[in-house]
Amino acid sequence: MTERLIKSVTVEEQAAAAKKAAKILGALKTSEKNEALRMLADELEAEYKSILAANQKDLQRGRENGFEEAFLDRLELNHERILDFAEGLRAIAELADPIGDILSAWKLENGLQVEEIRVPLGVIGMIYEARPNVTVDAAGLALKSGNAIVLKGGSSAIFSNIEIVRIIHNALKKTKVPKEAVQFIAATDRKATQQLFTLKSHIDVLIPRGGGSLIQTVVENATVPVLETGVGNCHIYVDKEANVQKALKIIINAKTDRPAVCNALETLIVHKDWLESHKKELGKKFEEHNILIHGDQKVMAALPNVLPADEKDWANEYLSLDIAIKTVGSLDEAIDHIDRYGTKHSEAIITENEENVKRFMQLTDAAALYHNASTRFTDGGALGFGAEIGISTQKLHARGPMGLPALTTRKYIISGNGQIR
Amino acid sequence: MTERLIKSVTVEEQAAAAKKAAKILGALKTSEKNEALRMLADELEAEYKSILAANQKDLQRGRENGFEEAFLDRLELNHERILDFAEGLRAIAELADPIGDILSAWKLENGLQVEEIRVPLGVIGMIYEARPNVTVDAAGLALKSGNAIVLKGGSSAIFSNIEIVRIIHNALKKTKVPKEAVQFIAATDRKATQQLFTLKSHIDVLIPRGGGSLIQTVVENATVPVLETGVGNCHIYVDKEANVQKALKIIINAKTDRPAVCNALETLIVHKDWLESHKKELGKKFEEHNILIHGDQKVMAALPNVLPADEKDWANEYLSLDIAIKTVGSLDEAIDHIDRYGTKHSEAIITENEENVKRFMQLTDAAALYHNASTRFTDGGALGFGAEIGISTQKLHARGPMGLPALTTRKYIISGNGQIR
Repeated sequence: MTERLIKSVTVEEQAAAAKKAAKILGALKTSEKNEALRMLADELEAEYKSILAANQKDLQRGRENGFEEAFLDRLELNHERILDFAEGLRAIAELADPIGDILSAWKLENGLQVEEIRVPLGVIGMIYEARPNVTVDAAGLALKSGNAIVLKGGSSAIFSNIEIVRIIHNALKKTKVPKEAVQFIAATDRKATQQLFTLKSHIDVLIPRGGGSLIQTVVENATVPVLETGVGNCHIYVDKEANVQKALKIIINAKTDRPAVCNALETLIVHKDWLESHKKELGKKFEEHNILIHGDQKVMAALPNVLPADEKDWANEYLSLDIAIKTVGSLDEAIDHIDRYGTKHSEAIITENEENVKRFMQLTDAAALYHNASTRFTDGGALGFGAEIGISTQKLHARGPMGLPALTTRKYIISGNGQIR
Repeated sequence: MTERLIKSVTVEEQAAAAKKAAKILGALKTSEKNEALRMLADELEAEYKSILAANQKDLQRGRENGFEEAFLDRLELNHERILDFAEGLRAIAELADPIGDILSAWKLENGLQVEEIRVPLGVIGMIYEARPNVTVDAAGLALKSGNAIVLKGGSSAIFSNIEIVRIIHNALKKTKVPKEAVQFIAATDRKATQQLFTLKSHIDVLIPRGGGSLIQTVVENATVPVLETGVGNCHIYVDKEANVQKALKIIINAKTDRPAVCNALETLIVHKDWLESHKKELGKKFEEHNILIHGDQKVMAALPNVLPADEKDWANEYLSLDIAIKTVGSLDEAIDHIDRYGTKHSEAIITENEENVKRFMQLTDAAALYHNASTRFTDGGALGFGAEIGISTQKLHARGPMGLPALTTRKYIISGNGQIR
């Protein structure tokens, strides 16, 4: 089975089959799509043992290749995680179906009736790294929004992904959704990914999800339009008038709750006067949580055990318990720093000064801007969007967590009885 | 003056200045932006003679370079056209300001208040060809939507554009809008255009407007996100059950009203039975309007003076009084042809069969789909959108005529009092 999946068709043939299937899927009723989602959920639950067996093969290969524990953790599945996959699909079935919504409608003086209708994008190309849950989530969100999907997962999860897709295909055979609507590219070489970059006639959008270099490669090389996701070099600015309890609580949460995710704190920008007043409490908190500080001169003078920060520290995500700290003399200096190094993901200000809040919100350019709250809230679930396919850090089409509407476009349908211009 | 405009700064410096100005412009009140638009209108009207003088230089150079009459026509300005520029700007001042609109707002259980607010994109890069009116329209739409703009016009209109921008700058000095918000790249070489392609840190979106090869070059080479516009290889499908009067009227209007625009008819797809029944009336109409037919075998057999059509005829815009005609045996064959050769701009069906209308609307993938009406209605004015910056033929972000909302994005502003996750 695995062998045939790998060798039988080319990437272009898979994409063309997805496009054909998209036409059928795009015309299905909401109830038909929801039945298919629930069928997928049931079958993934029922066949969890075969998924775990395939996952063991990936884990073993990962160990042989000397992958880090943290990486293997993300790759590893267990019964509970698979039950979570199924619950996720059932939750997607509960979400409102955006397709067919009449977004606006009007009649022109010449009698033409115009309707703006929400329709699927068509075919989504999803390029992602380790976690096999993306295979299930992305397929579910695509299906609900009436889109076919071409999945290109990372080679480290190849056995898990192939098994999951086999189960999805078997399940779809029992539904109105053509199984060709979910395509998985089983080749593990880079060429297969690169082929997706230019298949403009079959693929409507590419969504890369993973590390910064994967996303950069797709953005720079694809001629298919890209929805850029995920790199979060997030800042918290602690203003001169920040409340110390709120500041400490938020900083520690944003840095330590899950350091490897994109909405974690990477650089703390702190007003020099606040630092001077609160350096003891701040230093103590960092020490308690084993946070490694990289700072500028003033930070090195104020706090113990600080490594000198350079350009790299300001520009990159650590995704670890490291933090960069920059001192500034004003709010505007903080905004300038974010302008230069931010990735337009999530930025926060901690202050009791409402004028400064207003200025920060006006002048900072990012998807999510926080006042006196942790940057960790930027995700679909936490903000109340429901399931998401990624967090957009671009400005066009979708910004922030991308739920079902981000996977749609519109058509204008104009009805007449012979009108000419 | 002209010399200094050309030599004083680099493209990157201009884009950086635009970004700085965008922050000021983005924070202005609606009334301040409207005052600036009206000031631009007044000054362009007042200085029309200097614009006409500059335009004469472009025309003379165009004649010396042997440009075609149609091209010179589009380039040529007169007093009335300049009054139209001014009226266009005043009409933009009357449009609702999208900036600051609260698109949605909700409170989470943890007390966090979320607001989704419409904000400007930032800096728009506009790359366009001959017509100097784009300089005025694009600057006006950018300004109203709170965006700075970097204009790169075609070299054939360079003197007209430089003079228009000089007047815009002088007018802006009397307003709250920083004159740096409108940048014009006066260099006429291609390098200047190419530099815009990769200025991701200063430019938020590129909008190419012009011929197919210009747009292709931008789409294929830019790493800055692109809003693709304008190429319209538009089809009309005349179904077996089409009313002959409606069909003839719509075909002739869509083909001959303005053959050089993107919403003009390029390929007529006709059901073979309808062609057989109505070949006489159709042939006569085409002859009356001097339309040159390129057709398949059946068309050559049915109508007089038909040239054989090949792949190029199906794939390209004529932008002239030429037409390609393809016969089909079914609606689905027509949809397949549009799928293969259409540019997702405007497509029409002429029929009295409601089932076929429904199927055409469901399965055809384009920004605007017409039933029993001319494709010529796809523009901002005709559809009631107000002024437009171009017609999007892509699916992401904006589809069809792009008015002010297409030049905006959103921010999520999340307010708390110490919430952590």
